[in-house]
Amino acid sequence: MFRFSVRQKDSRTQTRLGSLTTAHGSVATPAFMPVATQGTVKAMTPRELCEIGTEIVLANAYHLYLRPGVELIEQAGGLQRFMGWDGPILTDSGGYQIFSLKDLCRVSEEGVRFRSHLDGSTHFLTPETVVRIQERLGVDIAMVLDECIPGLASYTEAARATALTTHWAERALGAKTRADQALFAIVQGGVFPDLREQSARALVALGFPGYAVGGLSVGEDPDLTRQVAGHTIQFLPETCPRYLMGVGTPEQLVRYVALGFDLFDCVLPTRNARNGTLFTRAGKLDIRRAVYATDQRAVEEGCECYTCQHFSRAYLRHLAVAGEILSAQLNTLHNLYFYQHLMRAMREALAAGEFATFARPFLEPVVTEGAEERLWQI
Amino acid sequence: MFRFSVRQKDSRTQTRLGSLTTAHGSVATPAFMPVATQGTVKAMTPRELCEIGTEIVLANAYHLYLRPGVELIEQAGGLQRFMGWDGPILTDSGGYQIFSLKDLCRVSEEGVRFRSHLDGSTHFLTPETVVRIQERLGVDIAMVLDECIPGLASYTEAARATALTTHWAERALGAKTRADQALFAIVQGGVFPDLREQSARALVALGFPGYAVGGLSVGEDPDLTRQVAGHTIQFLPETCPRYLMGVGTPEQLVRYVALGFDLFDCVLPTRNARNGTLFTRAGKLDIRRAVYATDQRAVEEGCECYTCQHFSRAYLRHLAVAGEILSAQLNTLHNLYFYQHLMRAMREALAAGEFATFARPFLEPVVTEGAEERLWQI
Repeated sequence: MFRFSVRQKDSRTQTRLGSLTTAHGSVATPAFMPVATQGTVKAMTPRELCEIGTEIVLANAYHLYLRPGVELIEQAGGLQRFMGWDGPILTDSGGYQIFSLKDLCRVSEEGVRFRSHLDGSTHFLTPETVVRIQERLGVDIAMVLDECIPGLASYTEAARATALTTHWAERALGAKTRADQALFAIVQGGVFPDLREQSARALVALGFPGYAVGGLSVGEDPDLTRQVAGHTIQFLPETCPRYLMGVGTPEQLVRYVALGFDLFDCVLPTRNARNGTLFTRAGKLDIRRAVYATDQRAVEEGCECYTCQHFSRAYLRHLAVAGEILSAQLNTLHNLYFYQHLMRAMREALAAGEFATFARPFLEPVVTEGAEERLWQI
Repeated sequence: MFRFSVRQKDSRTQTRLGSLTTAHGSVATPAFMPVATQGTVKAMTPRELCEIGTEIVLANAYHLYLRPGVELIEQAGGLQRFMGWDGPILTDSGGYQIFSLKDLCRVSEEGVRFRSHLDGSTHFLTPETVVRIQERLGVDIAMVLDECIPGLASYTEAARATALTTHWAERALGAKTRADQALFAIVQGGVFPDLREQSARALVALGFPGYAVGGLSVGEDPDLTRQVAGHTIQFLPETCPRYLMGVGTPEQLVRYVALGFDLFDCVLPTRNARNGTLFTRAGKLDIRRAVYATDQRAVEEGCECYTCQHFSRAYLRHLAVAGEILSAQLNTLHNLYFYQHLMRAMREALAAGEFATFARPFLEPVVTEGAEERLWQI
């Protein structure tokens, strides 16, 4: 059921045009997955997601397990039916969320015990139960349970967590029962190149249909993110989809597409929208600022999203200042359209053999003289 | 530009099928106007409003005057352009809101001085400035400034306010300059039949293109609302649209359509939606209740709204409990669809000569034996 094929590779960068086939439809890659943590992309209807070119969304197994519960979603006929989204869904295992609970979670070789952020109830999850949860949710792509460590963890701590994550990945693979669901591994290893290599090699040896790079963009220096991601990807098979978790800004998307990543997710476009921050080709714009009070232009001239086609900056500022729900709706629609449009533009540039030219303006601020070619290689 | 024509009258009730023509399009009556106080129907995009059959919306001149300000909306090319709604708009003058400020407002013969509920700034509005504000907003139907008194006001107090409202209405009419905007008068008079008659007769003598009945559904007993509305409407010309302000529940809409009212507005469907209360033909349903947690049915079987076509009660409960914005969106869409569908059903029943049959089930709870025929007469 699950297939990934690379249809075209760029001559100057590592970028590739691909196609992901799942039981719920195909996804053109590189692809951005809007975040639907609790089974809804905040402030967006499924038909609006379709309209802006979304082909896959990301939900969170941990959140859905706690509320409304796996049994309910299974009874509804799976997460797609439950949330009214017909297309492919990837669920994050929730490792990141569980380990963010810090004092409320305790990890052992067997699994992780934690207290719910909702009601304080105690839960114990293992690599096997997390696979089971995602199989019952009926999603197309499941993620293994990984141990996420703080960005500044020591080498010793990172080494221990990485070994455990690998061990858990092997157990997760053994627990799989559904042929219509792909299970992706997550490379960990903190900011340590040798641990990243070790993690990637071990997971690849286990043979997953897809690989994610986790534990990045969690507060570390962006240069470091770039180094680690660029280092790690070389150990991941070209025949498999490669997913950079939690990344990122529009510039980062272009950068990591250039490095050969295929899948992305990030709360930025949706969270920023609710805070009044809008993306444009010229940069971000805080719509609450007084300067927009009388600005009758669209957020972005030429943007074909519903928001830009029908509403002015002045109106969007009014909605934001007045605390209207429509503010979140229209801002989210624009930001996600911006992201999906960017992904589509990258795929088109790649298909036309013009990816490097397309990407340059996005990356220029960090290009040092003469280093441009190197940038694409890392 | 503004025209109203009665196309058909019911044989057994006072119900009439009409058509309101404005500079921004036509409205089939009886019509329900979703409330867009601050220039947005909360949690709804204009295209969603169109989709569910909305032909006219109600905004609030007082709110828009305070924020974002009349000048800005005028510069945008009028309220329609500003809020991205192409159809007709009626603005309430804001009298109700201003007089709700109680201690923050002081009325004189000349006008009303009040403090903004937003920032405490002092403002003075007169019948003339309120006409001017609405002309600058560029809406299709403006309402006169009226003095709204508490539901339990004494006869003396009601008489004074009613006389002032009539005097203000005359001044408002004199201040009108735009031919493409209709100005409606508002009948006041509290719960006193003779004051209502006096108010209606005086306003009709001034010759407005439409008449509203205000000061009802403000907490008084529903029987009293019915008596006063039924008494008042007989003094309003059949050739003009008759608007019952702030009413009401689905049952009330049917009841007052039967009495011959043509226009309605109410925050119930939108406000209830945000609180998780959904309308169905079988009554209201609080979607947050635990009983809906595993209910895989649509809110209402057979309902053709987007919400009912794609989402279960279980999912809507999950969204409400999780505090998701999509909860407000989907609930509002359903409730407003329910209202617009009800209005359409009434118009169709009327056109088919079956209004009384259609209306009976809605009104049954209050029909006393043998009194059914009388009900249609007031």
